[in-house]
Amino acid sequence: MESLNEFSVVREFFSDFSRGKATVIGPGDDCAVLRLPQDTQLATSSDTLIEGCHFPLGSSGDDIAYRAIATSASDLAAMGAQPLACVISLSLPEIDIAWLKNFKHGLSSAIRCFSLPLVGGDLTKGPLTITVTVYGSLPAGRCLLRSGAKQGEIVLVTGTLGDAAAGLAFLKNEWEPNCDDKEFLVRRFFRPESRLDLAASLLEIATSSIDISDGLLADVGHIASESGLSIQIDVKKIPFSPALSKLNNNQQVLKWALSGGDDYELCFTMPANKNIPPGCTPIGFTAPGAGVRCEGYDNISSGGYRHF
Amino acid sequence: MESLNEFSVVREFFSDFSRGKATVIGPGDDCAVLRLPQDTQLATSSDTLIEGCHFPLGSSGDDIAYRAIATSASDLAAMGAQPLACVISLSLPEIDIAWLKNFKHGLSSAIRCFSLPLVGGDLTKGPLTITVTVYGSLPAGRCLLRSGAKQGEIVLVTGTLGDAAAGLAFLKNEWEPNCDDKEFLVRRFFRPESRLDLAASLLEIATSSIDISDGLLADVGHIASESGLSIQIDVKKIPFSPALSKLNNNQQVLKWALSGGDDYELCFTMPANKNIPPGCTPIGFTAPGAGVRCEGYDNISSGGYRHF
Repeated sequence: MESLNEFSVVREFFSDFSRGKATVIGPGDDCAVLRLPQDTQLATSSDTLIEGCHFPLGSSGDDIAYRAIATSASDLAAMGAQPLACVISLSLPEIDIAWLKNFKHGLSSAIRCFSLPLVGGDLTKGPLTITVTVYGSLPAGRCLLRSGAKQGEIVLVTGTLGDAAAGLAFLKNEWEPNCDDKEFLVRRFFRPESRLDLAASLLEIATSSIDISDGLLADVGHIASESGLSIQIDVKKIPFSPALSKLNNNQQVLKWALSGGDDYELCFTMPANKNIPPGCTPIGFTAPGAGVRCEGYDNISSGGYRHF
Repeated sequence: MESLNEFSVVREFFSDFSRGKATVIGPGDDCAVLRLPQDTQLATSSDTLIEGCHFPLGSSGDDIAYRAIATSASDLAAMGAQPLACVISLSLPEIDIAWLKNFKHGLSSAIRCFSLPLVGGDLTKGPLTITVTVYGSLPAGRCLLRSGAKQGEIVLVTGTLGDAAAGLAFLKNEWEPNCDDKEFLVRRFFRPESRLDLAASLLEIATSSIDISDGLLADVGHIASESGLSIQIDVKKIPFSPALSKLNNNQQVLKWALSGGDDYELCFTMPANKNIPPGCTPIGFTAPGAGVRCEGYDNISSGGYRHF
């Protein structure tokens, strides 16, 4: 293989994934060009993941690529948007072919899974950092905000909570899960589920929505404060995976579920008299006042990851 | 001032700049939402600048913010696109209020100067790094690529070349400019000119275009290779600022101009029989064959910055 510089690395590892219905011009020019579907507006979000902060040192390229795209895709899902494309800015300390092959593998899976063709990017030398920008479409004039919840609605989440935080705690040697569950929990950290398939129905039925990145209580707190109401969570209704259920709902499990973050499930509100979308669990309700109450869990003040 | 975390920093320093004709939803939700003008397509680019690599250690927040937005805006100009908005992912080692105030100042100038309202972003803890994603609009079905040059056309550049590289060399203590020129040269590095005002006329008249980030010869080389032709540059026609002109066109000045990069001027091709846009200088022509020839300058092989 020729001596690799950023141009040949981009050609070799990042140029095969640009085809998509919105792609007019993919990687290799000054900008990517996207054609939005008729009568739509653009939803977009950009997130940076840094080694040692957002994923453990020594994580595989495969996992890092997948997680970076999944966590950004989750922002599109939370807005009710349909995926169009993504762009990646990658900073690497060195060119490591084995690592890059691995990265390409994770990239390829995530791009397929989230329908986010890679239309551009940037490769620089520096500490291992990945910034993913995602582009999605929304019907003109419509989107799902954190601020739209009304009093007397129900609060729901997708999937199960706490698995990713439990998986991360295992990666940090903070506990030892049952042998059968290790792979599942670690996978829940590195391979968040796509909830993009729910985006269209949430846009119809939900009044507010957020993705759970910082921990349920912190994120549901954003809905409460931006909607100007209070939210009451019923701890007994939190959905757990079999792996966490078998730990008998102890305070550690609750902490993972309520304050752990990293699940990238969606939390949303909707009128109580409508049909609940499949895979979603009601966990509470909105009410007058402010803040989040969660009886049976005392650790609210520690809710949510803080960078500083 | 309250103890600052990423939420209060975003509120305090980054939330005032979102108003713009395309902005539907600005910072603070899962995604920003942009309304594109009718019958347009989206041009977008994402670039990362890392301290110690793209700007010297200890650069002011003011300069870093301005340069980051300017260099990304330049990608829009090179495509012939009109600016709509930008999003910033910022990684900081610590919360330093004085630095952030400075950063906000540069941000504010650049946002105004490049008409790129800040509609979203992300703040994380890590090595000082800034990723700017820009969004622009292009008439449906049209854009300016590197691959569109035809044989027998003229090659032009905007502004003057080499100033930014000379300014950077001074910042690195590699030479000592005339006292009167120091500020001008350093400013040319940190405050690249906006060429967005040329974008619309280039879209009408130019056949190919690129912004000069890696050095003229490297970047014009992309036009040559992607358009399948050769380009001949006439060294005597390279436009120099008064600050560099007075150095008598020596090989060091040529090296800054031809291989230095960082000017973020535009290089483009157009038919020889059309009117040259104001502020642009013809420096060569396209011909059959491949590669870039540049008589009077021997250093072609060193052309262009390489990250790895």
